[in-house]
Amino acid sequence: MGALDAGCFEEELENGVGLEEDVAEIGWESGMTDSESESARAIEDAVRVLLQGLGEDPEREGLRRTPHRVAKAFREGTRGYKQKVKDIVQGALFPEAGLETGTGHAGGAGGLVVVRNINLFSYCESCLLPFSIQCHVGYVPSGRRVVGLSKLSRVADVFSKRLQDPQRLANEICSALHNSIKPAGVAVALHCWHIQFPEALPCNSNSTYPSKLDMQGWIQVLVSSSSGVLKEEKSSLWDDFLALLKLKSINIERGDTNLYSASSWCPSRVLETSLCNGHCARSPKNGKTSKTGVTHASMMAAVASILHSLGEDPSRKELVRTPHHYVQWLMNSRSSNLDLRLNGLSKANSCNVVDGNFTCLNEIQSVLNIPFCSQCEHHLLPFHGVVHIGYLDKQEGKCIERSVLQSVVHSFACKLQVQERLTRQIAEAVYSIFNIGVIVVVEAHHLCMISRGIEKVGSNTATIAVLGQFSTDAKAKGLFLQTIADNNASEG
Amino acid sequence: MGALDAGCFEEELENGVGLEEDVAEIGWESGMTDSESESARAIEDAVRVLLQGLGEDPEREGLRRTPHRVAKAFREGTRGYKQKVKDIVQGALFPEAGLETGTGHAGGAGGLVVVRNINLFSYCESCLLPFSIQCHVGYVPSGRRVVGLSKLSRVADVFSKRLQDPQRLANEICSALHNSIKPAGVAVALHCWHIQFPEALPCNSNSTYPSKLDMQGWIQVLVSSSSGVLKEEKSSLWDDFLALLKLKSINIERGDTNLYSASSWCPSRVLETSLCNGHCARSPKNGKTSKTGVTHASMMAAVASILHSLGEDPSRKELVRTPHHYVQWLMNSRSSNLDLRLNGLSKANSCNVVDGNFTCLNEIQSVLNIPFCSQCEHHLLPFHGVVHIGYLDKQEGKCIERSVLQSVVHSFACKLQVQERLTRQIAEAVYSIFNIGVIVVVEAHHLCMISRGIEKVGSNTATIAVLGQFSTDAKAKGLFLQTIADNNASEG
Repeated sequence: MGALDAGCFEEELENGVGLEEDVAEIGWESGMTDSESESARAIEDAVRVLLQGLGEDPEREGLRRTPHRVAKAFREGTRGYKQKVKDIVQGALFPEAGLETGTGHAGGAGGLVVVRNINLFSYCESCLLPFSIQCHVGYVPSGRRVVGLSKLSRVADVFSKRLQDPQRLANEICSALHNSIKPAGVAVALHCWHIQFPEALPCNSNSTYPSKLDMQGWIQVLVSSSSGVLKEEKSSLWDDFLALLKLKSINIERGDTNLYSASSWCPSRVLETSLCNGHCARSPKNGKTSKTGVTHASMMAAVASILHSLGEDPSRKELVRTPHHYVQWLMNSRSSNLDLRLNGLSKANSCNVVDGNFTCLNEIQSVLNIPFCSQCEHHLLPFHGVVHIGYLDKQEGKCIERSVLQSVVHSFACKLQVQERLTRQIAEAVYSIFNIGVIVVVEAHHLCMISRGIEKVGSNTATIAVLGQFSTDAKAKGLFLQTIADNNASEG
Repeated sequence: MGALDAGCFEEELENGVGLEEDVAEIGWESGMTDSESESARAIEDAVRVLLQGLGEDPEREGLRRTPHRVAKAFREGTRGYKQKVKDIVQGALFPEAGLETGTGHAGGAGGLVVVRNINLFSYCESCLLPFSIQCHVGYVPSGRRVVGLSKLSRVADVFSKRLQDPQRLANEICSALHNSIKPAGVAVALHCWHIQFPEALPCNSNSTYPSKLDMQGWIQVLVSSSSGVLKEEKSSLWDDFLALLKLKSINIERGDTNLYSASSWCPSRVLETSLCNGHCARSPKNGKTSKTGVTHASMMAAVASILHSLGEDPSRKELVRTPHHYVQWLMNSRSSNLDLRLNGLSKANSCNVVDGNFTCLNEIQSVLNIPFCSQCEHHLLPFHGVVHIGYLDKQEGKCIERSVLQSVVHSFACKLQVQERLTRQIAEAVYSIFNIGVIVVVEAHHLCMISRGIEKVGSNTATIAVLGQFSTDAKAKGLFLQTIADNNASEG
């Protein structure tokens, strides 16, 4: 079972990749004040506690600079606390004549101005995970002045870069724009997506977890805020705002945005309720000590210290339970003994199945679109997507049950990971347990790549690992890749 | 014809919008060295010359800080000259075990690692306009080390933030990744889009200019570069790379990327050839003086000085004709006498037409999707999209020819603009010439919003202006907006 012993692959490598100081990552510190440096160090210390609480060694190569990266991501993600809307808008107000008095709208250039589809990320104040936002902003100019269009995005960005709740974010963007531009009215609509917590889902294998790469299965809410002549309740201009969104296939109906209930947004809160009812409890109780001697309580204290270092008040009502929620999320990635989890898997699980998910393609058996969610060990941020597994069936008609492969994927995903290692470990496990040639393709979105730093929304990573016959048979490999492509195409 | 006198709307406004110093925009200068400040000032001076060459007053409110913004955009857009790949990659190489020797691929974690759909912008070295890039990068790990996934985007970004040509960009990304990661091989595929020059299009009204908001009608090329085991010519791994792209519906066939001819990429070069043949010449000859006393030659010299200030060598082969091309582009926005251009328009143009582009909806006549390309006066960057015009037909069956409305749109688009003013001016022109109630909706992508600063790719701006009956009849306005939505939906 050597292939299942994850540890043996993580030894110090003799050929010594030179892990020199990360100049690019360190660069951001150069301009920091003493108190900022102190805050950054406090966050790094707290992250080390969290890593230990997960049963990890914070000094192993992959994790050594994780505290630094996480601190940087948190500070970048909350930079909005230090930005002033006045500074952004003031220089970008331009005099612009309006339509002739009495015949047209408003005192600005014409009527409504709407910027649609601004992609943003914010941090959920309830669980500290990033959530994705599609932001639409409109205003009706007044006083013969318009604002530079990019400033609408910039102001929205300032408030998204704070610990937020969707409705408050909409309200803050709306009132900031209203106060700084002094228009006849402002309209803001936000479509927000929050990643689901794995343990909030049904435990059986036919889970509702997203089976595609996009955000199906994520929790969505639609919120809005408006002021002045755009006030939703009374205004035909609000209808115009919605009509202009509709031109870009953004379909929001009047009243849609009133359906949001703050308490049902973040899955950590929903989960907390169900955990109180004794359902599916997995997180350790306060006082319980991890194998590295770090208690749950000290992990909670570490998160509170992060909140404090970000300039937040951990005793603010909305933040009181945040340390609990964040630790709860992290504990999904607790280091555990894989041998134990995989113990039940053996060739006994290889049996005849009648399953629509199988595609018989000569000898290649394909199990496609196994959903997963894992945690990037470099940034402590989720990456999620699907795993496709192909294997060469030696005995015709003998197949591995989909649920077995789901268990294998789940076992390796539920820990701090990198996608490359996850791919390899799944391939090696299947190869070792079933003694068959195997190909594994993992497709994933990384929140670390889309929510911070370079913010490449839409980027997506694919990795591939092949063992046994697939590594020498380019044709078999090609056929399997084509099978995935055909399947994706047929699912649209 | 007061409504056609653009000048009367651009007077100094008495209610004085406080155009205080733009703190946010100035902020970037604080960390600049003396020589950087000098370069920035040189670019600003050059932009002032260009504005004068366009017949504009660089001191009018809308333009006063344009030199500053353009200088900043150019410096941001070429920041890659100062970035070192080594700094980015070095701290992000992680030891990662490979598949068991002899049974799998490569010495890294598994096989191929591919990041798909990285959105980038670069500046065309031939005409200084930004072009859009969809970048796909792959590599096969070696020496038991993998690179942090976000570094693949970051390295691609370094080289895109320079004056570029698609093929060179692909080659530079490929060789930088190969040298810094030292993998078994690297694959890079770039899909690039370049905006079309208006005068390169047929002069008649049925132009092939993009009739939708996306980049239909833009010039596209597909280029690639590869190294080591991924070398395109010999490698089945190159096929795997293309197969992994196909999973995201990125369909590139082997050989597709060899079709690119550098000489046919930038429309400025194509145009230059056709201009040499005496076709459709619009740009003034050297020595010709604009109404503000600035010669074409001094505009060219100003652009050469910008190139120099960006650290480029204006005498480098690929840059020799760039000043000519950029000035040629800018001259599309030359300030001109609108009265002259619109002289031919009158009620005589209102006549019976049988035209599939008309939708008769009770009294409202709709002319949808009139394409346009204009120039943002704040950043000297294109914004482009479509104009929808609705009017209330007083005499049943009497319609305004589509080509007449196209001329109106074209007249106001061909100058330095802001979208709000463009919308108002079109509405006022139609209202004034034809004496009818009118509604104008403009939908546009702004390259200033997606290629610089906050880089909100996908964001899109809609503006609306109403005159006459439409300003009091919310129902008529709603019907027209619904007509556009229905039309967009039916066109997919």
